[in-house]
Amino acid sequence: MSLNSNRTTTGPRVIAVGVGPGDPELVTLKGARLLGEADVVITPVGDKGDGSIARAIVAGLVDPARQEIVEQVFPMRRDRAGLAEIRRASARMMAAHVAAGRTVAFVTLGDPFLYSTFLYVYHYLREEFPATPVEVVSGVSSIHAAAARADLPLGLADERIAILPATFEDERLRRALADFDTVVLMKVFRVFAQVRELLRELDLLAGAVYLKRVGLPDETVVTDLDQVRDDDLDYLSLIIVKKIR
Amino acid sequence: MSLNSNRTTTGPRVIAVGVGPGDPELVTLKGARLLGEADVVITPVGDKGDGSIARAIVAGLVDPARQEIVEQVFPMRRDRAGLAEIRRASARMMAAHVAAGRTVAFVTLGDPFLYSTFLYVYHYLREEFPATPVEVVSGVSSIHAAAARADLPLGLADERIAILPATFEDERLRRALADFDTVVLMKVFRVFAQVRELLRELDLLAGAVYLKRVGLPDETVVTDLDQVRDDDLDYLSLIIVKKIR
Repeated sequence: MSLNSNRTTTGPRVIAVGVGPGDPELVTLKGARLLGEADVVITPVGDKGDGSIARAIVAGLVDPARQEIVEQVFPMRRDRAGLAEIRRASARMMAAHVAAGRTVAFVTLGDPFLYSTFLYVYHYLREEFPATPVEVVSGVSSIHAAAARADLPLGLADERIAILPATFEDERLRRALADFDTVVLMKVFRVFAQVRELLRELDLLAGAVYLKRVGLPDETVVTDLDQVRDDDLDYLSLIIVKKIR
Repeated sequence: MSLNSNRTTTGPRVIAVGVGPGDPELVTLKGARLLGEADVVITPVGDKGDGSIARAIVAGLVDPARQEIVEQVFPMRRDRAGLAEIRRASARMMAAHVAAGRTVAFVTLGDPFLYSTFLYVYHYLREEFPATPVEVVSGVSSIHAAAARADLPLGLADERIAILPATFEDERLRRALADFDTVVLMKVFRVFAQVRELLRELDLLAGAVYLKRVGLPDETVVTDLDQVRDDDLDYLSLIIVKKIR
């Protein structure tokens, strides 16, 4: 395994800046400084309306008069080849900036190394432009912000934590709910009803909290999952299940 | 379930400030601001030498001439009753400060809601001083910083992540390594040799990285677990195991 170049801290480079879950004050001092220093700042935009979030978070930290602020669209659903081409083009553009002596900051919600758009672009950067230096500035994950809002510690002492993405096969989900003290179900909106019924069956509803758009002005926290309405379902949603001991 | 008071953002209160993995620049803007504004700042000290870490991180953010900076010892090993008394005393002290109109910032490495000393004190705060307002300021977890340093994404797309603490029963560890794409083994120093043999048996060594004291000046990253020496084992250590797909 080749170790990364993501300790690079000087010279033209790509910097993946984790800006946290939504509150502009949850950006790190380092992230704020590097966003202000970069020549080019890229804010990825999905087509689910979460793109303006990144731009809103960094608005007070960048200066359009001095820096190039680029909004880049990464659609959520698209054919695989089309998605690959968009990600490859993003990598190519960033590598070209760096080759021309410019430092590029790529804004990522939460942390760059956890379920981020950056990871896809990073793949192509490493594959096609391995000489382009990359620095990663870790950020506060929305999972941590969600735990604080739900008042459910992710892990205490020797507790075991599982983080599962949107699609759940029933058997493996059951096993995770049996084996782990805390289970975080990401992007749960598509399968919410069936997950709720499984939690009811396993008698785990009492320690389950649904959170939507954590850290954003319209965040919602629902401690009784039976009170979650269809309107509450959102792409940026998760459930934290904690076994009450 | 009663929802928390941790949205409190004005008035005398206890603020748990996650200051990140070690680099003082990985403190959030909010954490830095609130540490500077607090009347009392508590830095917990273990008896494993990691205590001065918290103090070093906040050194540039607090002002001993204006604020009361308190170092509080939380021993790692002690009888249960003794530990409970220390944590209860910490909660009592914080509640007394708040009752007297002072805001107390409790510094926690990483994030306050993930394996932190704060969670123990919080338990007593909630139990014995439920009227004391508590705010939680999420921080960057060392797990995220470790993933960036190891160049191993924690999760991409629909990948599943397990975070397991120090003690591993062989069967459940095997099951986690089978079921999950990424497994983070926390505080692995006591059982390092047996974990390494298990990873060898399961042919998972190629995607395993050992990290010690991530974010601190003496951090160590070892990508070949057979190169880890006894000297490298440390309380603040973890292994990230990533299945190479």
